[in-house]
Amino acid sequence: MVQPPSTPFLQVDVGRLEANLARTAAAAHHAGVTLRPHAKTHKCPEIARRQLELGAVGLTVATLGEAEVFVEHGCTDVFVAYPVWLDDDRAHRLRTLTERATVAVGIDSASSAARLGDLVPGLAVLVEVDSGQHRTGVPPVEAGDVAAVARTAGLDVRGVFTFPGHGYAPDGRDSAARDEAAALSVAADSLRARDIEPRVLSGGSTPTLEASLGTGVPTELRPGVYALNDAQQWELGSATAEMLAITCEATVVSHAGGRVVLDAGGKVLAADRAAYNTGYGRLLELPDARVVLLSEHHAVVEGVPRGSDPPALGSRVRVVPNHVCAAVNLADTLWADTGGELVPWTVAARGRNT
Amino acid sequence: MVQPPSTPFLQVDVGRLEANLARTAAAAHHAGVTLRPHAKTHKCPEIARRQLELGAVGLTVATLGEAEVFVEHGCTDVFVAYPVWLDDDRAHRLRTLTERATVAVGIDSASSAARLGDLVPGLAVLVEVDSGQHRTGVPPVEAGDVAAVARTAGLDVRGVFTFPGHGYAPDGRDSAARDEAAALSVAADSLRARDIEPRVLSGGSTPTLEASLGTGVPTELRPGVYALNDAQQWELGSATAEMLAITCEATVVSHAGGRVVLDAGGKVLAADRAAYNTGYGRLLELPDARVVLLSEHHAVVEGVPRGSDPPALGSRVRVVPNHVCAAVNLADTLWADTGGELVPWTVAARGRNT
Repeated sequence: MVQPPSTPFLQVDVGRLEANLARTAAAAHHAGVTLRPHAKTHKCPEIARRQLELGAVGLTVATLGEAEVFVEHGCTDVFVAYPVWLDDDRAHRLRTLTERATVAVGIDSASSAARLGDLVPGLAVLVEVDSGQHRTGVPPVEAGDVAAVARTAGLDVRGVFTFPGHGYAPDGRDSAARDEAAALSVAADSLRARDIEPRVLSGGSTPTLEASLGTGVPTELRPGVYALNDAQQWELGSATAEMLAITCEATVVSHAGGRVVLDAGGKVLAADRAAYNTGYGRLLELPDARVVLLSEHHAVVEGVPRGSDPPALGSRVRVVPNHVCAAVNLADTLWADTGGELVPWTVAARGRNT
Repeated sequence: MVQPPSTPFLQVDVGRLEANLARTAAAAHHAGVTLRPHAKTHKCPEIARRQLELGAVGLTVATLGEAEVFVEHGCTDVFVAYPVWLDDDRAHRLRTLTERATVAVGIDSASSAARLGDLVPGLAVLVEVDSGQHRTGVPPVEAGDVAAVARTAGLDVRGVFTFPGHGYAPDGRDSAARDEAAALSVAADSLRARDIEPRVLSGGSTPTLEASLGTGVPTELRPGVYALNDAQQWELGSATAEMLAITCEATVVSHAGGRVVLDAGGKVLAADRAAYNTGYGRLLELPDARVVLLSEHHAVVEGVPRGSDPPALGSRVRVVPNHVCAAVNLADTLWADTGGELVPWTVAARGRNT
């Protein structure tokens, strides 16, 4: 058996993972909504396989490289939820992918639609609309314009999609889900005004998931983080402590100056810190503790309760990363705790950013 | 010839790299100070080899895994500037390393010193002291206590070291270098009071480098970032625009809503953002522009000068990462621009965090 490494390493609680996957699959099924989980969170074929077994219609990915990995591992339906701009290399890779699986990509400009139509005739596309995050995506009323260009260019317009990323805010989850529903509805009408009937209205993120299911508008949701969760979801209130399925096992390496310093730094946890995060990560067993200073290989922890002994030098603690997607992207292996044994799961899509 | 990938990818300007390496090597030589560059920045044997050719006495690394990689690639003298806590696996690896190279590690507790002495008799160590960053390291006056335990445990006490990380602050560089000098002096005296003569007083970081050379106290400096630089150094004033030797080549993928969005997100740039950073990264050719929103695969850019056309959809721009060490740790390959040709340099120590 392969041995887990010395610390720091990422560890998955398989029982919690299974509960997270089953809970969301059941909620989507109950609401009559299709799940297309975002695989950028875990980048891991073992987890993707379970999502598909539990009824997911396919996977969402962010890059062609991620799509290639998951198709290689047996997934037959992928959506690249990104406004892919094709250079020659990507055009070749995308054509190859379409021969092996059902593939759709995002578009948010007439230029991109025309280019995709030239280079990959007949490709399925979804028009991205901006529901309030103000990142990519056209205003919803303009979705029909892009869809019409896509149709003229010979693409198959499957529908519209949005990412309600502004739901990553305290008390922002419900309003972002309402924005998502409104944006998808307006975008769908904008397509219909061009005589294009959208077959898919795709939304979703982990924080907005429950509220999105309640709006009745999206036909498909694309949460990613829900599988494993992280300190962001914990602090946003979209995950309880019992739903935290990934931690970084770390060793206490220093007590100098009365501090508690761990060997889990930004090179394993990632340095992501949202405005609402109370630190750079949290300790699973000490919910009042916070990582208050994060270097590449050091995490300084404060908030060990008065009267408690701090974790001893050389002892191990489990750190909940702020942002699971960023932490997983730093690891070659996730160590799956199946209840006694640690099994290596390869992060097969790590670094597949192109 | 291996082709560079589609965007995003990291690119090294070899001419600028060489100039950075030569400038610092000359300054250290002129001041009579030994350089021991920190290889955690580049993780790349090609760059390490040039540092050693230019007179570096050896390399600094953060982990045993990094040490293993650079010894494998021919480095014969490594210092693990970290309070290494030995478990069985690490003890075995450290003993193996000492058979192949001159190795020293950091200590900042009596417990760690005693443990190292038991497990790796005769190992060279440096006592870490806190010069103001308040991360690891004992107060300088206590260095002699730790050194005495180390000597009793059978270790070879080479000297003392500190990292003046609080120099990463606007107007903090000179005062941090003074703190560094004071801490190293006090620590050295504290060793001498125990009849231990320190052979090395080791300090250094890139922002404090010039000021540290002026204090006359450190005998050795361990800068890392100076080789490549990044937006942090640019904004701290420790690097000019002409000293920026690494960028992320990115493609403009969206103009939706009048925005400029690149395909270089946190999964290639890293999400590090110090309090003094003016954004999540900058554009080499557009110094007024800033990455104002960074997702995993998106960078939203603002600050294109009024009256200029924004970079066209599908065009390429070069993004200066905020923190080079974190960005390099996400890459499998650095593409070295030797003036016309792009040559792949493997990031051999990527992910070697244990």
